[in-house]
This record gives sequence, C-alpha cells and structure tokens, in this order.
Amino acid sequence: MENSGFCNDNYNSGTSDDDMVDISGATLDFSDDVPQIEGDHFGAVSSSGGVTNGQAKLMDLLDEAVPGVGTYEDFNTIDWVREKSKDRDRHREIAIKSKQSYWALLHSVNDAFSGWLLMLCIGLMSGALAGLIDITAHWMTDLKEGVCLDGFWFNHEHCCWTSKETTFHERDKCPQWRSWAELMVGVSEGAPAYIVNYLMYVCWALLFAFLAVSLVRAFAPYACGSGIPEIKTILSGFIIRGYLGKWTLMIKTITLVLAVSSGLSLGKEGPLVHVACCCANVLCHLFAKYRLNEAKKREVLSAAAAVGVSVAFGAPIGGVLFSLEEVSYYFPLKTLWRSFFAALVAAFTLRSINPFGNSRLVLFYVEFHAPWHLLELAPFVLLGVFGGIWGALFIRANIAWCRRRKTTRLGRYPVLEVVAVTLATAVLAFPNEYTRMSGSELISELFNDCSLLDSSKLCDYVNQDAANITKPSNELPDRPAGAGLHSALWQLSLALLFKMVLTVFTFGMKVPSGLFIPSMAVGAIAGRLLGVGMEQLAYYHHDWPLFKGWCSQGADCITPGLYAMVGATACLGGVTRMTVSLVVIMFELTGGLEYIVPLMAATMTSKWVADALGREGIYEAHIRLNGYPFLEAKEEFGHKTLAMDVMRPRAGGRRGDPPLATLSQEGMTLGEVEALVGGTKFSGFPVVVSQESQRLVGLVLRRDLLISIDNSRKHQEGVVSASRVVFSDPPPPQVENGPPDLKLRSILDLSPFTVTDHTPMEIVVDIFRKLGLRQCLVTHNGRLLGIITKKDILKHMAQMANRDPDSILFN
Amino acid sequence: MENSGFCNDNYNSGTSDDDMVDISGATLDFSDDVPQIEGDHFGAVSSSGGVTNGQAKLMDLLDEAVPGVGTYEDFNTIDWVREKSKDRDRHREIAIKSKQSYWALLHSVNDAFSGWLLMLCIGLMSGALAGLIDITAHWMTDLKEGVCLDGFWFNHEHCCWTSKETTFHERDKCPQWRSWAELMVGVSEGAPAYIVNYLMYVCWALLFAFLAVSLVRAFAPYACGSGIPEIKTILSGFIIRGYLGKWTLMIKTITLVLAVSSGLSLGKEGPLVHVACCCANVLCHLFAKYRLNEAKKREVLSAAAAVGVSVAFGAPIGGVLFSLEEVSYYFPLKTLWRSFFAALVAAFTLRSINPFGNSRLVLFYVEFHAPWHLLELAPFVLLGVFGGIWGALFIRANIAWCRRRKTTRLGRYPVLEVVAVTLATAVLAFPNEYTRMSGSELISELFNDCSLLDSSKLCDYVNQDAANITKPSNELPDRPAGAGLHSALWQLSLALLFKMVLTVFTFGMKVPSGLFIPSMAVGAIAGRLLGVGMEQLAYYHHDWPLFKGWCSQGADCITPGLYAMVGATACLGGVTRMTVSLVVIMFELTGGLEYIVPLMAATMTSKWVADALGREGIYEAHIRLNGYPFLEAKEEFGHKTLAMDVMRPRAGGRRGDPPLATLSQEGMTLGEVEALVGGTKFSGFPVVVSQESQRLVGLVLRRDLLISIDNSRKHQEGVVSASRVVFSDPPPPQVENGPPDLKLRSILDLSPFTVTDHTPMEIVVDIFRKLGLRQCLVTHNGRLLGIITKKDILKHMAQMANRDPDSILFN
Repeated sequence: MENSGFCNDNYNSGTSDDDMVDISGATLDFSDDVPQIEGDHFGAVSSSGGVTNGQAKLMDLLDEAVPGVGTYEDFNTIDWVREKSKDRDRHREIAIKSKQSYWALLHSVNDAFSGWLLMLCIGLMSGALAGLIDITAHWMTDLKEGVCLDGFWFNHEHCCWTSKETTFHERDKCPQWRSWAELMVGVSEGAPAYIVNYLMYVCWALLFAFLAVSLVRAFAPYACGSGIPEIKTILSGFIIRGYLGKWTLMIKTITLVLAVSSGLSLGKEGPLVHVACCCANVLCHLFAKYRLNEAKKREVLSAAAAVGVSVAFGAPIGGVLFSLEEVSYYFPLKTLWRSFFAALVAAFTLRSINPFGNSRLVLFYVEFHAPWHLLELAPFVLLGVFGGIWGALFIRANIAWCRRRKTTRLGRYPVLEVVAVTLATAVLAFPNEYTRMSGSELISELFNDCSLLDSSKLCDYVNQDAANITKPSNELPDRPAGAGLHSALWQLSLALLFKMVLTVFTFGMKVPSGLFIPSMAVGAIAGRLLGVGMEQLAYYHHDWPLFKGWCSQGADCITPGLYAMVGATACLGGVTRMTVSLVVIMFELTGGLEYIVPLMAATMTSKWVADALGREGIYEAHIRLNGYPFLEAKEEFGHKTLAMDVMRPRAGGRRGDPPLATLSQEGMTLGEVEALVGGTKFSGFPVVVSQESQRLVGLVLRRDLLISIDNSRKHQEGVVSASRVVFSDPPPPQVENGPPDLKLRSILDLSPFTVTDHTPMEIVVDIFRKLGLRQCLVTHNGRLLGIITKKDILKHMAQMANRDPDSILFN
Repeated sequence: MENSGFCNDNYNSGTSDDDMVDISGATLDFSDDVPQIEGDHFGAVSSSGGVTNGQAKLMDLLDEAVPGVGTYEDFNTIDWVREKSKDRDRHREIAIKSKQSYWALLHSVNDAFSGWLLMLCIGLMSGALAGLIDITAHWMTDLKEGVCLDGFWFNHEHCCWTSKETTFHERDKCPQWRSWAELMVGVSEGAPAYIVNYLMYVCWALLFAFLAVSLVRAFAPYACGSGIPEIKTILSGFIIRGYLGKWTLMIKTITLVLAVSSGLSLGKEGPLVHVACCCANVLCHLFAKYRLNEAKKREVLSAAAAVGVSVAFGAPIGGVLFSLEEVSYYFPLKTLWRSFFAALVAAFTLRSINPFGNSRLVLFYVEFHAPWHLLELAPFVLLGVFGGIWGALFIRANIAWCRRRKTTRLGRYPVLEVVAVTLATAVLAFPNEYTRMSGSELISELFNDCSLLDSSKLCDYVNQDAANITKPSNELPDRPAGAGLHSALWQLSLALLFKMVLTVFTFGMKVPSGLFIPSMAVGAIAGRLLGVGMEQLAYYHHDWPLFKGWCSQGADCITPGLYAMVGATACLGGVTRMTVSLVVIMFELTGGLEYIVPLMAATMTSKWVADALGREGIYEAHIRLNGYPFLEAKEEFGHKTLAMDVMRPRAGGRRGDPPLATLSQEGMTLGEVEALVGGTKFSGFPVVVSQESQRLVGLVLRRDLLISIDNSRKHQEGVVSASRVVFSDPPPPQVENGPPDLKLRSILDLSPFTVTDHTPMEIVVDIFRKLGLRQCLVTHNGRLLGIITKKDILKHMAQMANRDPDSILFN
C-alpha cells in the first residue's frame, strides 16, 4: 500500500465503522500483469443482461436473492449498462403492477415522485449545513481576535449590531467586543497588546488546525482534501465505500469549520461539494430505488455536486453547469432539471438562514456602475495570461509537493505537517491585515467598488473637489491615490506572495481544503493591483492618446474592483480549467450581462495559456497522482492503435501473457471448471461453443459461477465433480446413468459487448466512455480472441502518453 | 409523394438552385418492406473505419479520392462514428505535419482557431440579421396603420422621437405620423376614418401574407414553419440538402419579416433559430474542416441554435441551455463553450444595433419590485395547470389540423389558405387593440408593472389618496380597478379566445411561423387576468384570513405583471416541454433570482400536466407527423424485446423476409457478386468467412463495391466475370492460368458494430443513440444472423407504441 490513498498520504487509518472500509482492502487486486479482467470482481449483477431476455426462464439457482448479489466490491468499477438495465426492469415491473391495483398505482406514483422528494431533502439539508458552516466559521474566525462580552457565541459583526454605540463608519468597533489583549492585559493599543493578540491568534489557529487534523485522522480519513477528484472518480462509476458516508459527512463538516477558522490558505467551497454529496448519499439510503442502484445513485450525486456549488457561491445555475462541465460523467436531461431544482432549494434554504446577514444569496455581492471600455480588454487579457501561468505553475508545484509527500517520510507525519504549516501561516499572516482576514472577506473587499464614504484603506483616495460630493456616489471620478492606498498596495503585494506560496503547501494536507477561495484571492489581489495601477495611470496621464476620448479628467473610467473580479476569474480558470460554469457563476454574482465579455476574455486566455503549459486541471492531476481509474471524457484519444494492440492476451502471445481462459458451453465437467476458476484470478470467463471453434456464447462472472456451484453442491442432489456443466439452451440430453448435469444458462450474460480486433482504439475508448462499460470482448472473424477492460485502456493511454502504466492502481 | 414534405404540405415546389434538391428525390427509397439497410446508401466513407487500421495498407483502388466518396445522399442518415473517425484522422495528420515545418505549424494553429473564428462570424451575422429583422418588422407592422411624413422609412415610435411636440404622456401622438385615414380622407376621428383605417390594415396584412407565401412557394419551400423540428432531425444526423442553404436563408429572412408584419398569430423566435442555423451552414462552407465533415458541421449547428435563441430573447445562457436541452443530439463540452461564445457575440451585436431603442439586450425587459408571498404559489400552480392543459390541447388540435392539411385537398391550396387565415386574423384583430398590436408588444404590455404615471388602459386604477403620490412609484399600493381596466379585461378575454383559436390554424402554414410568441401571449393574457382578479380580490377582501398578514390595506401585495409572466412561462412550457432553458431564459429577462421559484413551480406543473395529457412536445409531434427518422434521446425504451425480434431477416424466417445477402471473403466470383448486388437493393453487405460458417469478417458498402468493381473493370487488366473477388488478408495464392483476382480488402469495414441476438433492445437503442450508429450486425454464437438499421429500430418503436410502423419515411 505504498502508493494509494487519499489526500496523497501513504498511511492508513481506517476505522471499524460499517461505512468505513480500510483502504488497504484495495490491495487485494493490485498485482498488475495478470490480464483479462484481472481483479475485476464484477459483482454478479445476474438479475439483468443474460437473464432479462424476455423468455421467462426457469431460474435454476438464483431464484432467491443470494446475499451480496448485485453489489460491487470496494475499489471497483461499476457496469453502467447493467445498472441501467436493472433500473429499467424495476420500472417495468412497477408499471405492470400499477395496472393491477390502486395500492400499486399509488406506489408507482410515489416511486415517480421520490426523486423529486429526494432532491428537496438534499437541497434543504445541504443548504442548512452550509448555513451552519458559514455561521460557525465566521464566529470561530473572529474568536481568534477577540470575544463578545454580550455572549461568547456572537461573532464580531453580530456583537456590534446589537450595540447602540456603533456609528455607520466604525461598524466594527464597539465596547462589547473585546480583543484578547483588552481582556487579558487590559490594554488595547501598544506593543504588549499587539503581542498578546498575536500570540492568541497563533494559538487559536494552531488549536483549530490540530483539532481538524486529529479528527480527520481518528475518525474519517476520507474527510480530507477538497474531495472533488474523488467525487469525479466516483461519478465516473467507481466504488469507494465510506467516502460519502455519514461519518465522513459529520467529520468533514466539523473539520471544515476548524480548518477554515484556523486561517490556513484554503477555502470551503470545494469541500462543500463533498458535504453536499455526502448528504445525498446518506439520504439515498432512505429510498430503495436509489440505494440499490449505483447508476441511479450517481444521478443523484451529480445533482448534489450542483447543490454544493450553489450553496458555496449562491449561484444555482452556475452550480448546475459546474456539475455538468466539471464533475459529472453521466448527466441525462432529467438530472439537469432535478439538479436545478435541488440547487435552487438549497440556495433558498441558505438565504433564509441568512448567514451573511445581508439577505443576499451570493457570497460576494458586487454592483458595478461604470461601463468598461473596449481598450480595457488588453489588461483583462493580461490578467488571463497571469491566471493561466499561475494556474499551470501552481498545479505543477502542488503535484510535485504532493508526490514528495506520498513517496518520502514526510507523509508519515500529517499532524506535524499541518501544525507546521499552520504555524507558518499564522505567524506570517497576522502582521498583514489582508492576510489576517479570511479569504472570502479579502475577496469581498477587493471586489468592492469604492464609494465616497468607504473607510477602507483600499479606498483612501484624495478627494480633490469637495464640490463634486453632491454627485451620486456611483459616479465618482478617478482620483489620485492617498497614503492609505499606497500602504495597502504594499501589503497586498506581500499578501499575493504569501498566498501564492502557502497555497501550494496547503492544498493536499490532511484537512478539508478547497482551492476556489485561495485561487480567487491570488487573482483578485493581482487584479486589484493592476486595476489601481491603471486607474492612477489614467488619472495622471489622461492626455495620452490611449486614454483620450474615454478617460478624460474627472471621468470614472477605471473600476479597480472589476479588475479584481476578472483576475479572480482568470486564476480560478487557470487552476480548474472551468469555462462556462465559471463565467456563469461570476455572472450570477454580478447579475449583469455587461461584464460577461471581460470575464470571458480572461477565462478563455487563461485556459489557453494554462493548457499550453500543462494539459490537466488540478483535479485531473490529483486523479492521476492517486491512480484512480478515471476515463477522461474531455480528452480525445489521438493514437492510431487497434483493439488487438490493447487486448489481453496480446495478439501473437507476446509478453508471456497466459492464454485466454474460456469455458465450453457443454464440454466441461464441474471438476474441470473448478480447477480453471481456482487456478486463475480472472473475475469473468467467456463461454464458447467449443474450445476448437472459439465461437462466443456469452460471459459468466466468477462470483456468479462460484455462488451457483456452491449452491448446487449444497442443494442439488447428486452433483459431483464429474457432473457436466452445461450453458447451452436447450440443454443436451442428460447422459444416462451419469451424474446430473449442472445447468447454468441462467447466470450467463448472453449479450456481452464485442468489438473486432481491427476496431480502432479511439472507437473502443468512445464506446467505453459513452456506455460506461467495464469490459469488452474482442473477436476476429467470429472467433473470440481476447478481452479489454477499462483498466487495460487506462494503462494503454498512460503508456501512449509516456507515463508509467502501473500508475493506474484500482480496477 | 403523398405523405412527405415540409410544413405538412402534400405538394412540391422544388427549385433548380444547386442548394435545393427536389423533395421528390426522396421517393427513391420509400419502398418499405425490404429488409437489411434498405435504401441506406451509406455514402462510402471509405477513408475511415476499415482503412484507418494502423497498418498502412496498399490502397488498391481508392487511392485517389473518387468523386462523391465521403458524402451522403439526400434524406439519409449519417454515421457519426465514421464522421468522427474521419475528423480524428484529419487532426492526426495535421498534428504530424505541424512538427515538420513552420508553415504546417501555422496551418495547425489556424485549424485550431478556425472553430472560434467561425463562431465569431456566426454570432456577428446572426446578430446583424436579427437586428435587421426586428427593425424591418417593426416598421412594416406600423405601416399597416399609417405612415411618417418625415420619411416613410420611420416607424411610428421613431417618427415621434424626432418630433418636438410630443409630451411624455402621449409619446405616440405626433403630427408627423399620419394614419391612413388622415392621409386619404383627411379625417382622424369618426366612422369614415375608422373604416378607412380598417380597410388599409386588412389590405396591408393580406399583401404581406400573400407576398410571404408566394416567395416561399416560388423560391424556398423549406423556409416555411419554425424549422425547429427539422433542425432537431438534422442535428440527430439526417441529411436534408438545401434546408439550411443560402436560398432558404434569404427567403426565410424576407418572408419572416412579411409574415410577422402581416399580423398573423405567429412569432419570429423559432424561425430565428432556423435563420441562425442557415447562417452557420453557409459560413461552414468557408472552412474545409466543417464543410467536409457532417459531424463537425452539426457541432456548429448546435451552437447556432443557441445563437438563435440568444438573439430572439436576448438570453445567451438560456439559448445555450435551449440548444442543450431541446435541440441538440450530440453536444460535447467543447461545443458548450463555443456556443456560449457565439451566443454572447450575437447578443452584443444585436445590442449594438439596438433595435428596441432602449439599449436593453432583452426582448421584454421587466423589473418588478414587490416580493411575492408563499400563498401566491397556489395561483401560480393554477397557471401551470392552465398552461399544461392548453399546451396539450393545442398540440392535439394543431396536429389534427396539420394531418388534415396533409391528407385532404386543403393542402393543395397553400396560398389560398394563408390568405384566408390572414383575412380572418386581420378582420378580427383590428377592432381589439390587444390583438391589433404585435405579439411581442402585447406581451411587453402585459408583463409591465403599473406605475402611477402609466397611461395604459391596463393601469387605469382609481387613485384613492393623492397624498400618497409622494411615495416612490415602485411602492404603489393595490388600488381598485377603474373603468378603463374593466374594458381592458373584456378585450383581453376576447384576445385570449382569438389567440387560442387562430394559433392552431396558423402554425404549420406555408409561411415562417414561430410558436413562442403566440404561446406566451396566451399565457400572459390568462396570467394578467388572474393577476388583476387576485389583486381586486385582495383589495376588496383584505380582511379575509387568506390575505391577512401579508396583504393589508394599502399594501402592494399582488403584481399582475408577474402573473402574466408566470402564465406565459407555463403556456410556453406546456407547448414545448422545455424546462431548465425556459426558466433560465425568463431569469435572464428579469435578472433576479427572486422570481425563479414562481416560474419553476409553473413550469413544473405545466410539464407534468401536459405530459399526463400527451407525451410529446409540439416539435416531437411534428417530427412524427412528418415521419422523420429521429431517435428521441429523452424517451426511455420500455419494452422487453430482444435484438432478434427487430433484426432483418427475422429469426426463423418469419414474414417472408428474403434471406440475409452476404459475400464470402474468398469463394465468390465477380459475376456472382455482381448478380447478388444487382438483385438486391441493400446498401451494405456483410462479408463472411464462408457461407457455411457465417463467421463475420466485415461489412462492405454497396457504393464502395460498385465503384471498386467499375474501377477494376476499367483499369485492371484481365478482370472478367470469372475473376475471384477476395476480401481476405493475406490474399489466397493466385490461381495459375486463371483470371487475376480482385482484391477488395481495402474497402472492407473491419470494425462493424455487432450485438448478440439476445441483447435487450433497450441496450441496442442506447448504443444507437449514444454512438450515432446507422446499422448494427446481429450474431448468435459467433455466427452472423441479421442486421438492424436505425429505421428498423424506429419502426419497431412505432409498432410497440401501437402506431403505424410505415409512418417512418426516410432512412
């Protein structure tokens, strides 16, 4: 188990909870060079495929549901076709029954609406949890600086709301709120107060971070990281038991608050997607329709991903598009509609909780008034270039660091690592007010368009003509920068450096950590700096031909807040490679189509630049780092290989592959079958007409075969090793005086997917992606030749990209 | 040709333009009971599939591109897999070349960006055309009532802008604008003036409608209708030559303006989608990448559909979702991003043309101020029910009428029909001001929230306390209705009846006609009536427990405009069954998340109610009426049939099917092959190892085979009817002294799709949908058994739904 695991660790801390399966369980099938569905324990979905063949066959053995049938083992890939077949069978059954009685009709109506009910529940639960997280994190972040005398459960802002002595200008100063220095040494100014506050800030940060990492280690190792790479993998049809379980949900919620409050350079947006997916998974258990079908469950999880983004940003449409563009694998239209419903419910639940205290749905509410000029596209594109370069470099640095964590001794001390990074973060962050505040506060401040009455340092401009004050505040002209703004710019530059460096080390640690906020912060700082620079340039050089015509003296032509917003979009785009969803999220934040063009220009530039420097987004990079079996739907398979180059055994028996293990439909005895199955690890065996002809009849799964044989030996009289195993239909006449035949037609999948050996791999990959296959048989001139599994394809793709094919770990 | 054709006609008027192919050309393959890829002239895409097999094979015959290879015949289905293969081959070639020279590198960069360039062009062209259409239609609509003395090219509004004598209250009354009565008989009031105006109105309407239908008949029969059903079919992979050609574009643009101006109950939104798609298709001709590949072209057309809606409503995001949800078949993420870009470009082009004169992007700009109350959901749901019922009834009535048009003599007189309907419309419309104004004006007026100064009759409330006038106008309390409002309500009720009846007869006539505006108008009227009713109820009975707490006296608690909006959404949803895209379009119109919940409640109710009354939306219904080969992606295939029940020839030789015509890979002479090909109509022949074994080697297309044989006979020496035709590799040794063998391995598709005979049809349908297949071979135990084509599937589905399987016309 050296190189698997989550949050890039190389240790395990599985718990004994029923939701939790020790990750080392996945080592079972890690031996690599065994061909032919190696380790693919198909999970015996025997109720579909070969059995759903219209002719009501006598189910010899599997009449009653054998425990475990229809489920998958941990760390294995599901078969979408089977799961969807199963669901359609269920549907048909309900439809037929519903014509028979009113009760069944009611049941069918209930069944039809249970999806909507589930969506409603997910929306409500996720919205409520997100509100809770927001409120608690806000309070705990403030706790690092002081406490409210009216009640320790009030955060700074709330504490001062209730105070009557607060004026509009100093909303955050009120006697009820005491900094730790005031409480402990009784002074609020001077060096001692500063030192006490500093120490308390660092101590709280360390305490929160330590608690977070300890809880994660002790109770739910899956709760770390952002969770999006794993959710992408799960949605593509992979099983990770416990990853979305109730323990993970609980621990992730708690540790997310702790991690955010500790002041580390991380966000809560990515983890909120994980939290929403956990909610969905837990709620799925209430509905048999979703609990028992992995494909249906994934439809719900896709919607939950939309819900996560919806509550993170207050952007329901953006959330749905995020799920569609970035996370989901199978996204039918029905899911689109339901995700949208769930995302809206969640957004409104969050709004009614009102964690930001402003009745706004969105995380950063911005309202710009000045239009932008076409010439400004140049700096916007520049921000896009910056975002793209930073995104690509960040991914490289982060992946390099995570690989080092996985492969060296560093990974063995996750608690120490978290504490050390927190210490560095807290010590460096406190002196600078822009790093001391939380990431989302920082971004809000940077996005903000200065009004006349703004007291922030960023808005410290020199007001030249007081006569102009009668103008409405949203038509402020460009003004020269004041001293406060100058110092703010220096602080921001330091904050930029701080965020850029620390985020590399923070993302991937053993605490819940999202990337959205840190990336956006980096971009927003860069954007604001550029924006203020442009503004001053335009102010002092308004006679330059460049500015002539649109930026004359006294005009409000540059909005630094808009630059910050564009920069944030560009950086987030560079890191995640999101496109439409990113622009739509930002559109929902601003609420106006006016600024879509700048946002789009920056996003497009950023994506192009980042793609030129490195193909993968951060989530794909982490998926690859962890070796998950994820078949990327966006990337084109560009090589000219054929199915025969990928199948096992290789054509011509190269590489010492063992031959294909097939069963004959009539000619084998039970003893021979048992010997064959016992001597191999394959989890599926093609059944052929005869070993000579190699004409394919169907596919039988190891698990089904073993269960059926076991069952027969126990319950069917006279079955011995010399009994014939018969897959054909009609079965051959029973040999007189011989032992009774074992008829196994019912467990045979009669419709395995086949391709010819000359099929180009690009088409095979397309089939695997679009239909969600696990394996495919390869024929030549009607004869069975070999087999291709999803893992074979992933290994082949790794090989073609000059990567280590053994980096694909799971099945 | 009794039952094919467009706009449900049963006559033809093909022109001789190169873009236009006479529809009757499609009769070629209408004979129905011939099995096995009947009439599927595959179009010889020989450069891919079997040939792209990695081993650089000697291309015996097809070395040079034979004219016509790689194209499809009219009214046939494309093979998505082949088209995509072709594109990937092209990509690979460019990628390889780009490493060899700077020029080739430049070419590869150009190739990569040509998609974006094309999108830009489509956006610009569609935006400009939409602006032109808006302006001209506005002017011509006003022309029916009068003319501007300052210049006949000014519309009414524009004419009065320039006038200085206009006051704010009577913006539309100015001396420059003369009604026809003023001009012709010199009076502006009284019966004679009314009669003159009435007559002129009817005459202009008749003239416009006559011109429209004549132009359509004479130059571009494809320009009629909304075009969306056909575009859906084309996007699903069907070829209709000329449907998106330059003639159709020109004539549709002109006739759309005429049809809208004639005052018929139709809208320009649907046809705008067609216009945008025509633009895209015409512009595709500039780029070889798109011109030569039917799959790539369809990606562009999907984006163009988004552009169409974007310019129709000023809703780019809604447009993209419309394309995704309603129109497109194959919509990869790359297309999503590009559609979004094109939609934005188009929206901004339109805005810079500014056809509405208000700098707004959207068609109906609405700004509501009052929040809605939870109890109001009840009337909103009621509107949803109304929308659903009306939608379902409308579809039934319209389809019944269109079927009557197709099957009776009515269809032979399209000009007469249009003129008659226009006459009825104009005569009935003029006396009622709400039917006299254009559909979009009516909807704008109905959506409008009354302000104090509003002079419209709909806002004729009794102002009780003039003291309250100091309040900002957006906080008007509910007031009792005045006499003007009472008469407006009566007129609206008549208008509702008028629209409901006439739209049934209008949609499907031989003029360009969209459904969005008429449906929305019906819903908006119903909604406004209900809204005003609720408002008056709340005003007079504010002491009812129902209204207590939220609707006390003097409060502004009911916004009739919002009801109109919800009603419009519900009706449009009932007719088209759009969901997410509809809500998002409406969200973009209002710009606030506040009203999404009412809109969503109405849309959901409307969809559920309409689905309960009839499964299909209007576009699907028209597709079925016209017998297009459209494999609906939304509908689940719910039957338990197997591949063997659908394939031709039927298992067991039922129904007198001719046997499967196969070629042996070695054993046949040229004479035998020619006899087989000549004796059948099949457009593809499976090649087997031998007739006895029926083991599948590959598939050869009729077209390729004929071309190759022809070529050999001409260019290869000594080929006679006794020559052996050889498909195997390596070829068997040449018979000594015999005629030379004909080696045809190169035209063999070595990777045909196969399924087993026991594969459930639901899986087969899924494969066809997701991979875009045209045909699939069926095997049993490794032996070839039959073939399934897309048409077989559609016929089978029709049969299972108790419809006439012969209603599927094309291939």
